[in-house]
Amino acid sequence: MSSGKHLAKGSPRPALPDDGVPRLYSMRFCPYAQRAHLVLNAKKVPHHSVYINLTEKPEWLVEVSPLLKVPALHLVAEKEQPSLIESLIISEYLDEKYPQSPLLPKDPLKRAQDKILVERFSGVTGSYMKILLHDASPDELWAALDIFEEELGKRGTPYFGGDKPGFVDYMIWPWFERLAVLKYVLGERYSFDSQRFAKLSAWIELLLKDDVVKSFFATPEQHVEFWRTRKAGNASYDLLA
Amino acid sequence: MSSGKHLAKGSPRPALPDDGVPRLYSMRFCPYAQRAHLVLNAKKVPHHSVYINLTEKPEWLVEVSPLLKVPALHLVAEKEQPSLIESLIISEYLDEKYPQSPLLPKDPLKRAQDKILVERFSGVTGSYMKILLHDASPDELWAALDIFEEELGKRGTPYFGGDKPGFVDYMIWPWFERLAVLKYVLGERYSFDSQRFAKLSAWIELLLKDDVVKSFFATPEQHVEFWRTRKAGNASYDLLA
Repeated sequence: MSSGKHLAKGSPRPALPDDGVPRLYSMRFCPYAQRAHLVLNAKKVPHHSVYINLTEKPEWLVEVSPLLKVPALHLVAEKEQPSLIESLIISEYLDEKYPQSPLLPKDPLKRAQDKILVERFSGVTGSYMKILLHDASPDELWAALDIFEEELGKRGTPYFGGDKPGFVDYMIWPWFERLAVLKYVLGERYSFDSQRFAKLSAWIELLLKDDVVKSFFATPEQHVEFWRTRKAGNASYDLLA
Repeated sequence: MSSGKHLAKGSPRPALPDDGVPRLYSMRFCPYAQRAHLVLNAKKVPHHSVYINLTEKPEWLVEVSPLLKVPALHLVAEKEQPSLIESLIISEYLDEKYPQSPLLPKDPLKRAQDKILVERFSGVTGSYMKILLHDASPDELWAALDIFEEELGKRGTPYFGGDKPGFVDYMIWPWFERLAVLKYVLGERYSFDSQRFAKLSAWIELLLKDDVVKSFFATPEQHVEFWRTRKAGNASYDLLA
C-alpha cells in the first residue's frame, strides 16, 4: 500500500499485498495519471496507487513502464503480469473490463465521436504547456476551448456524457482543475471569459461537486504550489502525502 | 464515384450516388489514409473514395474534415451525416460497426496491448519523417523497429494478429510499403538489416501477398516517385489515377 509519498531513485520497489488488484503507477499532480485515477474511482475498481518521483525515477520503473512514463497500470492478476501505458488506452481498457458505471457509449459512432473530442482536446493541452513553458499568449487555448463550449451546446446536456459525467468529462477535467495555474502564470493576461464559456463554466461548477472528482482533487492553491516548486527545480511531489 | 484524381482548390464537391455508403476522403499516398482503406477493404465495406490534393485543398474540405486532414470518413447514412477523423479512431469504429473479419481482439487486455503497440509505432513514424525532412540518421528508426521484431517473436505467430493480419498489421503496414523511400533518401546509409529484422522480413513477404494489402498497393518505384515530386514542390498526386 502506498503512503502517497513519491518513490525516487534508490527507493526499493514497494511491497504490496498479494491480493491481485491492479497497481497504478502515478504522480500526484500529473493530469494524465489523474485520468486513470478518475476512471478507477468512477468504476470503484479496487487498486493500489504507487507514486513516482518523475525527476529522480526509481530504477525499477522500467519494469512496469518501458517508456518510464506515468500512468502505468500493472495487472498482477493476469498471466505474465502485463502493464498498460497511455492514459486513454488504460481508461478505455478499464471501461471495457469493468462494465459497471460505463463511461463510453456502446454505439460505435457515439464512441468514435467521444474519442475524437478527446483527441481534439490536445489543442488545449498543447496550448496549456506553451503558456507554462514558453510564456505563450492564452488566445490559442481559448480558441481550442470554443470547440468544447460549442459541443456542450450541441449535446444539450449538462455533461459531455449526458446526465452524468462520462469518458469525455473525466478525460478533460484535469486541465480545468488546473486553471489556477494558468492564472498564476499569466497574471493580468489571464482572460477566461465566463460569458464566452458560459456552458463550460456551469459544467466546471457541476464537476467540482462530483464525488469522483472530489475523490482525487487538489485545490487551486495546491496546483499552483506544485507548479511553482516544479518550475523552481524542486517539485513538491509529496505536498499532499 | 471517384476517378482517383485528386480534387484541388476550385474543384466542385463531387456528385456521388445517393446510396448511403460511407465516403472516405483520402490522399493516394498518405499512409494514415491507407490505414482506413485497408480496414474498409479487409472488411469489404462498400464505400466511395474521394481523393484530395493536400497542397491546394478544395474549399469544401472543411465541411467534412474540420482540421482539413485526411483520412475523414463521411457517414452519409447517419443522422446529421457526421464525419469521423483520425485514422485509428476511424479504423476502430469500422471494426466495431462492421463485425465481419474482426481486426482487434475481443478481450479488453489484448485490445489494449494491440493499441499500445500501435501507439509505440509512433517511434517509427516519427523517425521516418526525421529522415525524410531533416536528413536524420536511420539508427533511431531501427531501434524503434526492434520492439516490433521482438513482439513478433513473443507472439510466436506469423502476423501480429495471429494466423492472419489484424489491427496492428494493417495500422503499421503503410510505412513498410514505403521502405524504398528511405532507401532512396538515405542512399548508402540505408542499413535495413535482414538478420536483425528476420521476423519482420518474413512478415513483410507475407503481407506483400495479402489480398487486402494488394487491394491498395503502390510499388516501391511509385512511392519514390511521389516523394521525389512532393519534395520538389510538385507532388504527383495523380500518379496512379
